[in-house]
Amino acid sequence: MEAVKVLGSGRFGKAAKILAEMFQDKSYMNFISIAGPLVPGGLRVIIRDLVNAGHISGIVTTGSNVTHDMLEALGHRHVVGSESADDSILRKRGLSRIYDLYVTQKSIEILEKRTYRILDSIPESQRRDIASYELLWEFGKRIHDSNSLVRTAQLRGTPIFCPGIFDSMLGLNLWTYSRLHPLVVNPLKDFSKLVDMTYERKKVGVLILGGGMPKHQVLIANTYRGGVDAAIQITLDRADGGGFSGAPLEEAISWGKIKSPKKLVTVVGDATIIFPFLTVAALERMK
Amino acid sequence: MEAVKVLGSGRFGKAAKILAEMFQDKSYMNFISIAGPLVPGGLRVIIRDLVNAGHISGIVTTGSNVTHDMLEALGHRHVVGSESADDSILRKRGLSRIYDLYVTQKSIEILEKRTYRILDSIPESQRRDIASYELLWEFGKRIHDSNSLVRTAQLRGTPIFCPGIFDSMLGLNLWTYSRLHPLVVNPLKDFSKLVDMTYERKKVGVLILGGGMPKHQVLIANTYRGGVDAAIQITLDRADGGGFSGAPLEEAISWGKIKSPKKLVTVVGDATIIFPFLTVAALERMK
Amino acid sequence: MEAVKVLGSGRFGKAAKILAEMFQDKSYMNFISIAGPLVPGGLRVIIRDLVNAGHISGIVTTGSNVTHDMLEALGHRHVVGSESADDSILRKRGLSRIYDLYVTQKSIEILEKRTYRILDSIPESQRRDIASYELLWEFGKRIHDSNSLVRTAQLRGTPIFCPGIFDSMLGLNLWTYSRLHPLVVNPLKDFSKLVDMTYERKKVGVLILGGGMPKHQVLIANTYRGGVDAAIQITLDRADGGGFSGAPLEEAISWGKIKSPKKLVTVVGDATIIFPFLTVAALERMK
Amino acid sequence: MEAVKVLGSGRFGKAAKILAEMFQDKSYMNFISIAGPLVPGGLRVIIRDLVNAGHISGIVTTGSNVTHDMLEALGHRHVVGSESADDSILRKRGLSRIYDLYVTQKSIEILEKRTYRILDSIPESQRRDIASYELLWEFGKRIHDSNSLVRTAQLRGTPIFCPGIFDSMLGLNLWTYSRLHPLVVNPLKDFSKLVDMTYERKKVGVLILGGGMPKHQVLIANTYRGGVDAAIQITLDRADGGGFSGAPLEEAISWGKIKSPKKLVTVVGDATIIFPFLTVAALERMK
Repeated sequence: MEAVKVLGSGRFGKAAKILAEMFQDKSYMNFISIAGPLVPGGLRVIIRDLVNAGHISGIVTTGSNVTHDMLEALGHRHVVGSESADDSILRKRGLSRIYDLYVTQKSIEILEKRTYRILDSIPESQRRDIASYELLWEFGKRIHDSNSLVRTAQLRGTPIFCPGIFDSMLGLNLWTYSRLHPLVVNPLKDFSKLVDMTYERKKVGVLILGGGMPKHQVLIANTYRGGVDAAIQITLDRADGGGFSGAPLEEAISWGKIKSPKKLVTVVGDATIIFPFLTVAALERMK
Repeated sequence: MEAVKVLGSGRFGKAAKILAEMFQDKSYMNFISIAGPLVPGGLRVIIRDLVNAGHISGIVTTGSNVTHDMLEALGHRHVVGSESADDSILRKRGLSRIYDLYVTQKSIEILEKRTYRILDSIPESQRRDIASYELLWEFGKRIHDSNSLVRTAQLRGTPIFCPGIFDSMLGLNLWTYSRLHPLVVNPLKDFSKLVDMTYERKKVGVLILGGGMPKHQVLIANTYRGGVDAAIQITLDRADGGGFSGAPLEEAISWGKIKSPKKLVTVVGDATIIFPFLTVAALERMK
Repeated sequence: MEAVKVLGSGRFGKAAKILAEMFQDKSYMNFISIAGPLVPGGLRVIIRDLVNAGHISGIVTTGSNVTHDMLEALGHRHVVGSESADDSILRKRGLSRIYDLYVTQKSIEILEKRTYRILDSIPESQRRDIASYELLWEFGKRIHDSNSLVRTAQLRGTPIFCPGIFDSMLGLNLWTYSRLHPLVVNPLKDFSKLVDMTYERKKVGVLILGGGMPKHQVLIANTYRGGVDAAIQITLDRADGGGFSGAPLEEAISWGKIKSPKKLVTVVGDATIIFPFLTVAALERMK
Repeated sequence: MEAVKVLGSGRFGKAAKILAEMFQDKSYMNFISIAGPLVPGGLRVIIRDLVNAGHISGIVTTGSNVTHDMLEALGHRHVVGSESADDSILRKRGLSRIYDLYVTQKSIEILEKRTYRILDSIPESQRRDIASYELLWEFGKRIHDSNSLVRTAQLRGTPIFCPGIFDSMLGLNLWTYSRLHPLVVNPLKDFSKLVDMTYERKKVGVLILGGGMPKHQVLIANTYRGGVDAAIQITLDRADGGGFSGAPLEEAISWGKIKSPKKLVTVVGDATIIFPFLTVAALERMK
């Protein structure tokens, strides 16, 4: 079938082409930003494989996705639920809801204990001014689940930047720990690492799943090198409100976050559906 | 005209009723969370008035809204532009775009210099572990614009929490400053303050404009007191992707972030259009 | 407060300005297109008032809004419900749901009987090739509710075009009737009337609430005169899918449906919330 | 990889399962409804193949998709354009825009001539009261393009219902023709056929791509048999506005349009991207 070059299917095709180039051209250093429930939505293993294959050199994520990666690493399985459940009843039953999946209160308690143990084992001097990516490497060393993103990233020396790590269930554990023990997670150190990694690279590509702070951090860090060379975003957020999450990638050119309009594309949709097909399409093109 | 109790108009009416109660019942401590370009979209003066009237006791915001508040305080006026401009040309002309408004590169440079001067004037000991709300109070003391949210909040002793302050144009200035001078902005200190403020309050209400980290921080901090008592959100984000920004408030009940389904409502729409009318409607009901 | 000229608030302000001009400049003939549950959402009385004030000369609507106007004219009140009800249970209880409002099966049965009686009273010769606007005038003559749009439009000689009238609860009654009696509702006759009304008018303005066929019919009929002179649309539909409902008005210029980009604006939002405020804002400007 | 059962990926998986059952279980009679630019977006050939394979027994579509099918059958190729073009300039150059694709004015003129020739060749008696599906069969007989949906459907005896055929570029040709020659396209006749086809079928399944009248017609016609047995919808429209296009399928249960909540699912997204993958996923499951 001849490729359609317009509308949604055209944008998907363009994204597959750009992604294949990002993966194939070894002068690219690629980052992925993830926001929204993408780990519980099934992308955990795909991103892990891309990290293992060397296609992704850095991850920028919300605290929530790290929390879920660790919950799964601890053996927790999400409960398949319903988006129209009575939330007051769920609360009483110890279940917390994300659209149609439930997280058990019990698993969150197990995560808390485990987090404390890991934090205890990190030298205090290191804890006094630690970047999120450093903290997550420490976590990765102590996790034994080959499906885990945190574990895989540590083994590969790939940083997971989580500048808003404090704003998550895991973050609550960091906060309660910090009330009794020295702990300062410093997002400015993350940013330095991100700028250092990208500054002198020949080419930088970014794959943006969802918006939020992960999208913004990875793009703004690249302003110091004149913007990224290629960018793909998959999002359901819309542009009209003016918010950054739904903003078209073209807008980022005016801020020096992206170099040119040639290698950028927005695919409108749910990343849990589209990203697996996009990855397969890009890998197919590379054969 | 008889009030419509269903569909969008019904949700708006319910929101006006809840907001009037939040403003009128003095046992409420109210917070507003803002994400998206709401300050440049015109809500700056309305929120300032609500702070001055004592209706809002705490603000949780993105770094971007603080950046824009300070740009305006420094005399910068946004340029009215077009959402279909050529961003490469804008870039060459020193203009950065947010949908259909332009920010001049020059104003961002002025902000940088001013930010450095303010940071220099803050004692080094304070800078070594400062919460965003403390930092913004220091900024407020040094801003002379009665329309400014940062200024007004400082004068009223109202904290502006900006846990992701580093992720903004202003944040870049903090980062470059931190490369040469001691500066650690500590989001965990912000969270402690937020929990301390709300923990023993009889009632807490939240007004959520846009999603993102501001929405999440204000709600999660209230889990320690069993959830907020009233919540209104205005958003264009949708629920189906499962992301927190578009999540219905009901979902937050299952996480212990909101107490009950009785006093919560989501109004679908653009906060820059809806919030002014909602405020007027609430104030009218109080007469 | 100085008017904001950008983002959502700027679009709302521009819409109010254009609408005031459409109402004030007597060389304008104005049409309103309505799709989505706007009558049950409370806009019925506002549109009636605009028709009575001579601000609206033609209505283009879905069959559903006519159905609801007639249900209300027959004394039916919508039941305030919940959007998360169990629809199988509602079905058993004789309730049909539109988001959070319920229509009783009983009221639909009453409408059926009444529709048959009205159809019986229309001369057979007229029924053999009737436009929807002619049919609705016949209905209007036989409805005694001053709040009714169908009644008001008939009294004022304002046509209500309902080219998809067959695709509604009312339409089912037309279909069952047509199985036993002569009845042909001819949309091409509606179109002729619409073209005839607009063809030689000095200026035509359209107010588009929601998308669908009503939006398309009113715009495409104006291609014969080179496009409309002013257009405002309020919609939650998005542009990216390429569908006509969410398409920006600019696109319509390339089809000759709108004359120029000067007097057109899209306000993103729910018309049941935004349209009442927009009308008030336009009328205020006219003072 | 284990199937994800939640969020977007879970809904996609459920849709693939239901679709496979609809295709495989020969007691199903399946319909597809299409709204939005799906033919120009590349779904033309896929739907044709499904018709040829006997998986689809009826199509309900907007006039626009028929127009584009015929334009392509006449040799017209869409021009790949840009969504940010200047529409006034496009207009002058004889190009009409649908998001990022252009239709040439010339091709529309060729379609007009061809349409007239076909209409001339249909006996006048037939033209005086013709259903859209009958008219399209007449067109199909006179089109010689094996990729054409209209042609394929005629060869297979599959009706294409186009109840709003008059509301399209093709419809304008019908209208101008009807000013000089006898022509009445009667949507009530389409509805009779649709009810007759489904009324006594053991099982009916529907595949809903986009919303609008096609979605409503196919569902409402099935109320006479107690609702459809299985339903899948792919849409970007949202539920909150209350409009039918974005309404969840569950709502249709309360109207008797769908039998039970067991075999229905909404996949949020752009059908031009998702439908091809969904079809492949369903066909894979059948092996």
